[in-house]
Amino acid sequence: MPRTERGRRTLRKLLDAAAIEFGERGFHEASITGITQRAGTALGSFYTYFDSKDEIFRALVDDLSGKVRGAAREALREPLPALETERAALTGFLEFARAHKEIYRIIDECEFVDPASFRVHYESTARRITERLGEGMRKGELREGLGEAHAWAIMGMNVFLGLRYAVWAEDMTPEAVAELANSILRVGIAAPDQR
Amino acid sequence: MPRTERGRRTLRKLLDAAAIEFGERGFHEASITGITQRAGTALGSFYTYFDSKDEIFRALVDDLSGKVRGAAREALREPLPALETERAALTGFLEFARAHKEIYRIIDECEFVDPASFRVHYESTARRITERLGEGMRKGELREGLGEAHAWAIMGMNVFLGLRYAVWAEDMTPEAVAELANSILRVGIAAPDQR
Repeated sequence: MPRTERGRRTLRKLLDAAAIEFGERGFHEASITGITQRAGTALGSFYTYFDSKDEIFRALVDDLSGKVRGAAREALREPLPALETERAALTGFLEFARAHKEIYRIIDECEFVDPASFRVHYESTARRITERLGEGMRKGELREGLGEAHAWAIMGMNVFLGLRYAVWAEDMTPEAVAELANSILRVGIAAPDQR
Repeated sequence: MPRTERGRRTLRKLLDAAAIEFGERGFHEASITGITQRAGTALGSFYTYFDSKDEIFRALVDDLSGKVRGAAREALREPLPALETERAALTGFLEFARAHKEIYRIIDECEFVDPASFRVHYESTARRITERLGEGMRKGELREGLGEAHAWAIMGMNVFLGLRYAVWAEDMTPEAVAELANSILRVGIAAPDQR
């Protein structure tokens, strides 16, 4: 992270511009000058922070991954029962994806540009869901035996609902989509005495 | 489709070779000569069937989409109760993905090379799941009100479980993964009197 406020602002502008450049043009067509022009910064500023197009792409994936995490955390500020936590996390994610539709293209292209970051993004998301499931089990709100694979199932559900109902079309509200996903989880993963 | 048996064999060899070439090297690095060398066919044969690398890529996505559909249909030969149908379809898909790990990379890269085919692949998969849910509702085995969005949720669950447990690692059997996904659906989407 840059040490000065001015440096942090420039870095922020570069990352935001990179999200638009990579999101609109894709990695191969995107260019460093395209990014600096969108950011309104000099080409030299780019090289203060990054060595290459690859490097800013990796930083961007990390930045977006952090924003997704932040959007979920924001939605989870108050402690909620386990299933309401999943609903709030999905609603927060869908709202974030609507406002940042480019995120899908960038994360998906990451599979080809930087496979290691692609893997880290999903593995760390799955880990956070697994932790939430563990917490719900400890509180007796979720049935026993839930683990990593259940987290992958929930993550896949959320990612595909976001692709269809936040990125491709907005014919259902985030709340309605999250309620629908929650209705699948509610009876399925709630402990019998919570049904 | 070629009219002669020999033509159909050549086309098949080209598509199988293309799956390996695109799967291993990615669209941008892949080459037509790489495909014909792997297929053991003359360059001229390629141009009998395809005009360009783009065209065989599109044909390959369509071919793989058909194979995924075929693998699911194979698993569903005998009529089963609705939830057993979903379990069998997922088991069939996971077995197929284990044997054809390149399918993920190719379908995912399709989002960038040919976005329309990418969309068709998932929309038609979702449509088939929606039809199965409709059938299950008609038979009274699934709860009322299931539709397209539930199908997207199920598809997302299946795709991510396949990425994690068929492509990245095989630390759970297809049957165990399918049982786990089914346990989420079982109580969640079964009609109350089927629970």
